[in-house]
Amino acid sequence: MTEFDTGLPSTRMVQNLIKEKKEVEIKLMSDDLVMGKVLWQDQHCICLVDHYDQSTLVWRQAIAYLKPKV
Amino acid sequence: MTEFDTGLPSTRMVQNLIKEKKEVEIKLMSDDLVMGKVLWQDQHCICLVDHYDQSTLVWRQAIAYLKPKV
Amino acid sequence: MTEFDTGLPSTRMVQNLIKEKKEVEIKLMSDDLVMGKVLWQDQHCICLVDHYDQSTLVWRQAIAYLKPKV
Amino acid sequence: MTEFDTGLPSTRMVQNLIKEKKEVEIKLMSDDLVMGKVLWQDQHCICLVDHYDQSTLVWRQAIAYLKPKV
Amino acid sequence: MTEFDTGLPSTRMVQNLIKEKKEVEIKLMSDDLVMGKVLWQDQHCICLVDHYDQSTLVWRQAIAYLKPKV
Amino acid sequence: MTEFDTGLPSTRMVQNLIKEKKEVEIKLMSDDLVMGKVLWQDQHCICLVDHYDQSTLVWRQAIAYLKPKV
Repeated sequence: MTEFDTGLPSTRMVQNLIKEKKEVEIKLMSDDLVMGKVLWQDQHCICLVDHYDQSTLVWRQAIAYLKPKV
Repeated sequence: MTEFDTGLPSTRMVQNLIKEKKEVEIKLMSDDLVMGKVLWQDQHCICLVDHYDQSTLVWRQAIAYLKPKV
Repeated sequence: MTEFDTGLPSTRMVQNLIKEKKEVEIKLMSDDLVMGKVLWQDQHCICLVDHYDQSTLVWRQAIAYLKPKV
Repeated sequence: MTEFDTGLPSTRMVQNLIKEKKEVEIKLMSDDLVMGKVLWQDQHCICLVDHYDQSTLVWRQAIAYLKPKV
Repeated sequence: MTEFDTGLPSTRMVQNLIKEKKEVEIKLMSDDLVMGKVLWQDQHCICLVDHYDQSTLVWRQAIAYLKPKV
Repeated sequence: MTEFDTGLPSTRMVQNLIKEKKEVEIKLMSDDLVMGKVLWQDQHCICLVDHYDQSTLVWRQAIAYLKPKV
């Protein structure tokens, strides 16, 4: 996690989810499932916002997988 | 976690929570939920203080997510 | 996880699974088991797609093991 | 965890706990809670000693949080 | 895990297990126990093969311990 | 965990346990408790041997704490 390369497919996939304001679910290693729209990403975190406009700062180090909702 | 860039959105978001003395909850990979106000952050840790003025030194490596309380 | 060396046996094994469109199962440290075909891999993630064409972005950091399905 | 900067607030907070011979509790990602006085710290570990003079070498990588006992 | 030094005792021990075609068991941090013969190792993974010739790609990052079977 | 500095207190403490052939217990993040004498350590692993002369290769990345037995 030492670099944040915006050209990587995984970074671009998250960037597209931000643009398209898609709902996602993120499964964490703590076994939590967090849901919402992706507001922004940086080197360490992905910021989600839910239906009540509450934001959750998710640490990348804790992410197991991310899934766009269908 | 090799650098501590104060210009990153995630670092600034935590910095704002410090300034505004906002209550937060931090979910850890150990499945613990710790709550309090953020006193300070450095490269390795985030320091919380609770209603009884007790401080808890949270290791960044263990953070799953952080949420400002509503 | 600081480099992505396409010459490594493990990277090439995943690359072959992509070419052969093989079904795999990936066990995660969150104890989840995700299944599907590998679409692509980059330095941080492996992207799976399931029978309903839904994609799942799996973070490498969370992978315990990967097994081609028989 | 690639450097051990004795000037960091978190490192100094632990250093103060050593000087003051304060009891602490450390919650680990294995979900264990270890207690005792901090004898010393280095780049990889924090060494605790309990009432029976038994020492426990705690790996920093496993620490979720540390709390001075009240 | 940033380098793969074939001169390290631990790397050589695994290399010997490959040459001797010894059965091993590997305990993972996901709490899984995988068993088989070690086919090869690289910087990120250890590849096991079981009695049915099925291979399992184990990520080093997930290994808790490895034991030659007796 | 990018360097193996034999001058660090934690590395020297393990080195002394090797010389004194002391029994230790190591708690892992997988929640396993492994016991035995420390045979050797390198940058990635600590090798234990039990009463039946069976060796266990413990990955440092998985260690929560280490305790000399009393």
